[in-house]
Amino acid sequence: MRARIGLLGCGTVGRGFVELVARERERIRAHSGVELEIARILVRDPAKPRRGVDRALLTTSAIDVIDADCNIVVELVGGVHCAGAYVRRAIDKGRDIVTANKALLAAEGREIFAAGRRRGVRIGFEASVCGGVPVVRALQRGLAGDSIESIEAILNGTCNYVLTRMEDDGLDLGDALGEAQARGFAEADPSLDIDGDDAAQKLRILASVAFDVPVRSLRVHGIRDVTRSEVEGARSRRCVVRHVASARRVGGGAELRVERRELPEMHPLAAAKNENNAVLIRGRAVGEMLFAGKGAGSLPTAAAVLSDVVEIAQNLT
Amino acid sequence: MRARIGLLGCGTVGRGFVELVARERERIRAHSGVELEIARILVRDPAKPRRGVDRALLTTSAIDVIDADCNIVVELVGGVHCAGAYVRRAIDKGRDIVTANKALLAAEGREIFAAGRRRGVRIGFEASVCGGVPVVRALQRGLAGDSIESIEAILNGTCNYVLTRMEDDGLDLGDALGEAQARGFAEADPSLDIDGDDAAQKLRILASVAFDVPVRSLRVHGIRDVTRSEVEGARSRRCVVRHVASARRVGGGAELRVERRELPEMHPLAAAKNENNAVLIRGRAVGEMLFAGKGAGSLPTAAAVLSDVVEIAQNLT
Repeated sequence: MRARIGLLGCGTVGRGFVELVARERERIRAHSGVELEIARILVRDPAKPRRGVDRALLTTSAIDVIDADCNIVVELVGGVHCAGAYVRRAIDKGRDIVTANKALLAAEGREIFAAGRRRGVRIGFEASVCGGVPVVRALQRGLAGDSIESIEAILNGTCNYVLTRMEDDGLDLGDALGEAQARGFAEADPSLDIDGDDAAQKLRILASVAFDVPVRSLRVHGIRDVTRSEVEGARSRRCVVRHVASARRVGGGAELRVERRELPEMHPLAAAKNENNAVLIRGRAVGEMLFAGKGAGSLPTAAAVLSDVVEIAQNLT
Repeated sequence: MRARIGLLGCGTVGRGFVELVARERERIRAHSGVELEIARILVRDPAKPRRGVDRALLTTSAIDVIDADCNIVVELVGGVHCAGAYVRRAIDKGRDIVTANKALLAAEGREIFAAGRRRGVRIGFEASVCGGVPVVRALQRGLAGDSIESIEAILNGTCNYVLTRMEDDGLDLGDALGEAQARGFAEADPSLDIDGDDAAQKLRILASVAFDVPVRSLRVHGIRDVTRSEVEGARSRRCVVRHVASARRVGGGAELRVERRELPEMHPLAAAKNENNAVLIRGRAVGEMLFAGKGAGSLPTAAAVLSDVVEIAQNLT
């Protein structure tokens, strides 16, 4: 099977994707029988130096990419407006889609998935939640035989990094956030992370996969007002403060919350340190199950994108 | 899509499977469009009372089940000899297969998968390792885009139960094992568990999925000679004793080990208590990833079987 990929976006994850395709191409050909080829790449500035990226593939026109001779469109531009237009055009053209775009799926996922179903197009979105940890696939397929009762998760690496640095090193919020920025986990404007909106977007995606019922309520509280004394107080009770996104089925709907919680230090989510993510899923038959690992970063996220590409390509006719 | 299931075996997991099909049938029909129907059930003794199982479906002839009007054969008889013959016949008949049989796959997996590929038959075996935790799917599909470097895992619930009871309650091996038997985790003859062979079978399966290279060496050491003083000594060093199955790529082959190890109490596998399983996977791009949950039991294992059935049925033509 030949995967001819139209790549939209060549930022952090996009460059990781190009690198990973080059590195894993032979292994994937031998193992899965999938031939990977990047047909076109959408960029803002073709003149910018990008190591390992073939300049001849670059274009500043999304239409060039989507309408090129490709069968899978990988959307890594982020944001809702342009990305949504690109994805809808790709669906119209019958391209399968792989996206890491949590904001788009949280805002317009329902319509996009419906359009994909009508057009017979597959949409892979493993990379939109928890980077390389294949939790979307686990919920969609691995737990298809069970009823999911609840999800509790640490979905934002920046918040977790800040809270665990406050816990381990006695930093205050500002200093911990500064370190997160210095290490590249947090954006210059970290509001989306520390106000809880990033976690809420990811939680919406997980809940839609797990429950198949509409969201009835969503409460979002961030970590902007966390203090050293709150974190130290928790420690004195052998507890830790974590930013927990949770969802549970309530009647015919799902109740979603994003909030700080004090967890006993033996709680499975308490073990998530620094920029790691962790997802605790409770199924009626399987009981409690934990998935944990790096929730973000160029290569882990690119690996999730590539796994979706390979799986879709294996089923290309 | 209609999944007409021929069920081979109605022991602990088989009864769980029948129960789960009845419980989840409507949800799965609505969510996945798969109609589940159990066509025939192989049992040893049809007269034995089995709550919730339709007697009219029972037969003592495996051929009745495999040759019945079914498209998926679920093999839950266990063991290698009969189960292998059944699976080969089902493949010849073009039935897709779902199995929880780790002994069979560890011994004859290579031939069975090759026969399945030749006949165009799919073989689901998520339930053969770690019960309800979808780690096989994670390795096969979720991490298809990455190179797996190593696996370290707690794969045998009985050993872990025994070691953590010794650790928490100061029991010796005999007493802890007696409790495991009283609670139904351990067989009357627990050799397969405590000598490490069960973990070795599961490790072989994971390694074959992860590495795609032949096993070059396998060393197996059990927990039969573990002492209270070994466990207490570890505690005094802020460590725990765990029975760890590990695999890593070495040149063109895989090196497998099953052995007791002293792990720092902050090690991700140290958090696995009682009958739980945990699998730590290291991928070149994704880094370290942990999957943990109940590794055995009737309903968790049945849920993994049913998830495979649903996924295969969604792709039935």
